[in-house]
Amino acid sequence: MSRLRVAVMPGPGAPVELREVPEPALETGSALLRVELSEVCGTDVALRDGRLAGVPYPIIPGHVSAGRLEKIRGTMTDLDGTPFREGDLITFLDVHRTCNSCWYCLVAKAATRCPRRKVYGITYGLADGLAGGWADALVLKPGTLCLRLGGGASGRFMAGGCSLPTALHAVERAEIAVGDTVLVLGSGPVGLSAVIVSLMRGAGTVLCIGAPAARLEAARAVGAAGTCDIAEHDAGGRLAWVQERTSGRGADVTIEATGAPEAVVQAMRCTRDAGRVVVAGQYADHGDASFNPHADLNRKHLEVRGCWGSDFSHFARAVGITADPERSRPWSRIPIARYGLDRAGQALDDVAARRVVKALIVPGGDSPA
Amino acid sequence: MSRLRVAVMPGPGAPVELREVPEPALETGSALLRVELSEVCGTDVALRDGRLAGVPYPIIPGHVSAGRLEKIRGTMTDLDGTPFREGDLITFLDVHRTCNSCWYCLVAKAATRCPRRKVYGITYGLADGLAGGWADALVLKPGTLCLRLGGGASGRFMAGGCSLPTALHAVERAEIAVGDTVLVLGSGPVGLSAVIVSLMRGAGTVLCIGAPAARLEAARAVGAAGTCDIAEHDAGGRLAWVQERTSGRGADVTIEATGAPEAVVQAMRCTRDAGRVVVAGQYADHGDASFNPHADLNRKHLEVRGCWGSDFSHFARAVGITADPERSRPWSRIPIARYGLDRAGQALDDVAARRVVKALIVPGGDSPA
Amino acid sequence: MSRLRVAVMPGPGAPVELREVPEPALETGSALLRVELSEVCGTDVALRDGRLAGVPYPIIPGHVSAGRLEKIRGTMTDLDGTPFREGDLITFLDVHRTCNSCWYCLVAKAATRCPRRKVYGITYGLADGLAGGWADALVLKPGTLCLRLGGGASGRFMAGGCSLPTALHAVERAEIAVGDTVLVLGSGPVGLSAVIVSLMRGAGTVLCIGAPAARLEAARAVGAAGTCDIAEHDAGGRLAWVQERTSGRGADVTIEATGAPEAVVQAMRCTRDAGRVVVAGQYADHGDASFNPHADLNRKHLEVRGCWGSDFSHFARAVGITADPERSRPWSRIPIARYGLDRAGQALDDVAARRVVKALIVPGGDSPA
Amino acid sequence: MSRLRVAVMPGPGAPVELREVPEPALETGSALLRVELSEVCGTDVALRDGRLAGVPYPIIPGHVSAGRLEKIRGTMTDLDGTPFREGDLITFLDVHRTCNSCWYCLVAKAATRCPRRKVYGITYGLADGLAGGWADALVLKPGTLCLRLGGGASGRFMAGGCSLPTALHAVERAEIAVGDTVLVLGSGPVGLSAVIVSLMRGAGTVLCIGAPAARLEAARAVGAAGTCDIAEHDAGGRLAWVQERTSGRGADVTIEATGAPEAVVQAMRCTRDAGRVVVAGQYADHGDASFNPHADLNRKHLEVRGCWGSDFSHFARAVGITADPERSRPWSRIPIARYGLDRAGQALDDVAARRVVKALIVPGGDSPA
Repeated sequence: MSRLRVAVMPGPGAPVELREVPEPALETGSALLRVELSEVCGTDVALRDGRLAGVPYPIIPGHVSAGRLEKIRGTMTDLDGTPFREGDLITFLDVHRTCNSCWYCLVAKAATRCPRRKVYGITYGLADGLAGGWADALVLKPGTLCLRLGGGASGRFMAGGCSLPTALHAVERAEIAVGDTVLVLGSGPVGLSAVIVSLMRGAGTVLCIGAPAARLEAARAVGAAGTCDIAEHDAGGRLAWVQERTSGRGADVTIEATGAPEAVVQAMRCTRDAGRVVVAGQYADHGDASFNPHADLNRKHLEVRGCWGSDFSHFARAVGITADPERSRPWSRIPIARYGLDRAGQALDDVAARRVVKALIVPGGDSPA
Repeated sequence: MSRLRVAVMPGPGAPVELREVPEPALETGSALLRVELSEVCGTDVALRDGRLAGVPYPIIPGHVSAGRLEKIRGTMTDLDGTPFREGDLITFLDVHRTCNSCWYCLVAKAATRCPRRKVYGITYGLADGLAGGWADALVLKPGTLCLRLGGGASGRFMAGGCSLPTALHAVERAEIAVGDTVLVLGSGPVGLSAVIVSLMRGAGTVLCIGAPAARLEAARAVGAAGTCDIAEHDAGGRLAWVQERTSGRGADVTIEATGAPEAVVQAMRCTRDAGRVVVAGQYADHGDASFNPHADLNRKHLEVRGCWGSDFSHFARAVGITADPERSRPWSRIPIARYGLDRAGQALDDVAARRVVKALIVPGGDSPA
Repeated sequence: MSRLRVAVMPGPGAPVELREVPEPALETGSALLRVELSEVCGTDVALRDGRLAGVPYPIIPGHVSAGRLEKIRGTMTDLDGTPFREGDLITFLDVHRTCNSCWYCLVAKAATRCPRRKVYGITYGLADGLAGGWADALVLKPGTLCLRLGGGASGRFMAGGCSLPTALHAVERAEIAVGDTVLVLGSGPVGLSAVIVSLMRGAGTVLCIGAPAARLEAARAVGAAGTCDIAEHDAGGRLAWVQERTSGRGADVTIEATGAPEAVVQAMRCTRDAGRVVVAGQYADHGDASFNPHADLNRKHLEVRGCWGSDFSHFARAVGITADPERSRPWSRIPIARYGLDRAGQALDDVAARRVVKALIVPGGDSPA
Repeated sequence: MSRLRVAVMPGPGAPVELREVPEPALETGSALLRVELSEVCGTDVALRDGRLAGVPYPIIPGHVSAGRLEKIRGTMTDLDGTPFREGDLITFLDVHRTCNSCWYCLVAKAATRCPRRKVYGITYGLADGLAGGWADALVLKPGTLCLRLGGGASGRFMAGGCSLPTALHAVERAEIAVGDTVLVLGSGPVGLSAVIVSLMRGAGTVLCIGAPAARLEAARAVGAAGTCDIAEHDAGGRLAWVQERTSGRGADVTIEATGAPEAVVQAMRCTRDAGRVVVAGQYADHGDASFNPHADLNRKHLEVRGCWGSDFSHFARAVGITADPERSRPWSRIPIARYGLDRAGQALDDVAARRVVKALIVPGGDSPA
């Protein structure tokens, strides 16, 4: 058997290492996926910095990935029961099944809060096998939910990456009415996908507040009618900027995708009375925020909806959208920085510093950046 | 024409005065209502203390009232087009019509946020006529929405008073599933009505956290399965108290009805992941509260819904419920303190100090309290 | 090993036979349940008469049952992870897990339409093991979702039986507002549970149209404010009866639970404009019905919602409700006919002829009826 | 005062007449609107043929119209309170206010079922003044809800006409998820707008079944991914056509916009289990249809939603959409047949025979057709 290169985070705060491991034997129902593209996202930065609890270091990062099925042991079928074949280009849900037997799965029907869910590249560590995408190949465990990527779709899909189902979930929860003005706070990958999906879902106008300039330029390229740079406007200035564009009322819907605690309060203030705020940017604990329950919430008759993770429905819809070159064109306008496996650390640094808009690991490719 | 006694708040911070005014002439479509019961609620305390903006002092307080139609000029009809007759016992929506022509009324369909709504006893002052219930009689302006109160219903309805449609609105927004555990924060009139309506709406168990002891006793009398006194438990103790009763998960739904800003954050923490919080107790600005957007909202996949005011649908449902002696029995278990017009100031003091559970003005009656 | 008696339907149209089988060996994760009560419902009549497609005869009927865990192989845990013990009194979801991997389960989130679901007593036949409740004991397969029944709850729960989660699902889909008038068509077990659950869920008034007299008496006993006998009123008379009780408008919500195709059209006509109809009584094909799409549906701005089966959330809520003696008291007012295993055929005849309101098989008991 | 030409329907079944009337005096709050474009829709054909109940003949048809405010008496303001000025190009909601005081308006919140609503060109007759758009000018009564049409928007808006808010309402009720396959039955103006709005609202693919060829060509031009001609496929063939394009499951959502009763049943059969059908094409009584409640509704767990009329929110959103040339471009692809006032009868004949896709009356223009 051949040897495979994997990028490993040895522990919290430690730099990424490139290692070689033997290709593992495959149990029935599993498959070896030759990775073509794997994502670098904000969660990976938090992983490296040790800001997530319960991570089983050492770990191979890379939760959303695309690649070709190189070896299949037994039968793997798609949603409709059609078997996958070796050579198929696919992606897979990073959440390796929810338990479908606990109170959250079955009574609350809140599968993203299932306490037993396991996530490739995040809560599966090296001890669990080759379970992360920053590698020449990874092993798909039995029961992993896979989806085919048609011609050209893998590039568009991975330009969104995990931000795409996250944004779909956030927009689903936002209940945009046709013609609504949507405000997106944040211009990182989730923010950009939220701009695109909001427009696709009926928004009349999408405004985006974020930074730096290159990301705001991307926001406009994917459809934002206007952008506001947080480096140039303080909280009051941003609010005024929104009100000027919304008859003084504020946005009908605001989607928060920033990571900054105070942005949640800003979202409440920038939204019109009886509107909706979806909070999708607080994936790690960055501290507290202070708000006025009377003025910001109760008198406004506002709804504020936290939105955690995404489930297979969002993932399948994301793949479905990117199968259509016409409708998914905006994602091809997002500038991508590509890194070989050996430059994964650099990719993390660039993402952390917001020097790039979107970063992908290309295990088999060159490192042009 | 006879003279009528009215209780007047001359201005912010000034004590209530009893005055006499001549009975006014009635324009077509209006009516004189002989007041039998009028409410004293927390908003009236805020009115006296000058804590509400835009109040046109001097003002006759008393927004929700019941009485008999003494004189009708022209025709007044109910929802089904049946004319009212002099002598009918009725109540009326304190919101004197929303405009049905602004963006909030017609596009957002958020009539409680209509900027033109006028409220008897709150935003109508003495200059607008006899437009408050703390009086021998008041004048129903043309277009006021009135509802008949059947035999005995006026007592049950007024035991809820404005808290009843407020609680109905909050429970409507809470989307309780049959068998859910509902936590009510606050044991004042809105809290007590929220306990009753939650049970009526399918809650399996209702828990209530509040104070003082007499109000918690009332909460248990109206159906709360358990109560927790805030004087005896700090925030951590209250959270533990809830978790012990909810398999460690928290309540499915929490309805906040306290007036304390930090209670909104407590509500978020006492609610299970993917649950709902309805904020209905922040009717005046009592300051800021601090929360953790990651842990309290986003990771919990929580929904937090502000709930402002109520509309005619809630008012009509409230009157409908109290028409049924069996179903509305819990309201008859709420202890009522009754005050003559001359003791309105005392009523305000007692409500402010939480010395009584529910206070009513009885213009025509004795002052037994 | 001992021998167990089982009631078997050998094939479509054939009478039920009592057989003896050896107690089977148990695989890991399975358990032997000593049956205390098992249900006889309309589906069992359809099973005997061969009116359901895809039934793997011979079959042991009895899908919803209660009993004691006699032997457990390995570990079986409840929703919260607490292990069950031998001797525990339980019930279990008759649907032996949905696949959680098909398009209906994962994208449509319509688990009751999962094509791979298997149901004890209906789509599991004798070849699949002891998988029906009309028996001294049955075998719970690994992964069966079980719930404890507290003291006395088994009688209340089984008085509802499968009609209880079915009614809960129907009422969930009905979105009753507090104080609504609900019309229930049908006075069989599902109709009776729909009356109870509608009231529990906030209905102000519940009306019931059905037959025969004993079932209508039961409907009133469990809370219906009025009943109408279909033997005494034709379609026009029933509509007039409803309109007289609803200001001429019709019911806010109608729940159909009859089995008669024309009842679905009657439901549409008896419901007010912009109301909702839930169709939960058409579990077998009894032919076509004719309606007027303009007058019955489009002009009325009506919603008509089919409701198929129920999932674990409804089952768990049903068990939760019946754990509370106070709230579940109405089910104890439903008259129960009890039959020994040897009289299962008689039970089917009585259910088919509507001679009894609710029939239960009591394998270990006498046959008093 | 000058004289104005008006097209009048003298009574049921009688041909349209061109008459001249003196320009009327204007009461305070009213305005004279010089008509630029007025619509000819299926309802107008029903009006002429006497198939609508309660029409106060003689009547000036033309409910949705665009024109310039020629004379304003007093003040007319828009939603935000900004006054209109003479010369402004506007359109107005054909429903002249709902009563905002009946049970349907206030409790059911179903304003399109308000029994007191009055509609320009349909339930206002000549006796009510110049209240229809097939005229040189019409009189806007006090309280009419008007909206500005920006540069070029009037053409795009009127290419949709009344079909646009109707389609918006239908799509709102359809609750399309991003990526869903939507089936539109009918290729008339409502069907075409439903295709456009479904795509705008997130549909992944829209299929359209209708006739004749010119309308199906228009359906493809506005975005339908595939069309099926009812002249070439019977009911079974159409169902097969849909299943081939939907993995055999049927459409996620079907919007019926045909006028043929049996199309409602076809809609149910062409929709996947647990999907949604919106019925928006049964505006007049064309007879009954027969369906199977078990197979078509209950077992499918289907929702069927009647959708009547539209309210101001839909109208305002429609105007908002067509203000954006980019997003409303598809409407400019609908072929329009224009008719002078003198050729209104011909327009009706052409619409009735489906010889044109969309017909507009141009009172001030030529008659090129």
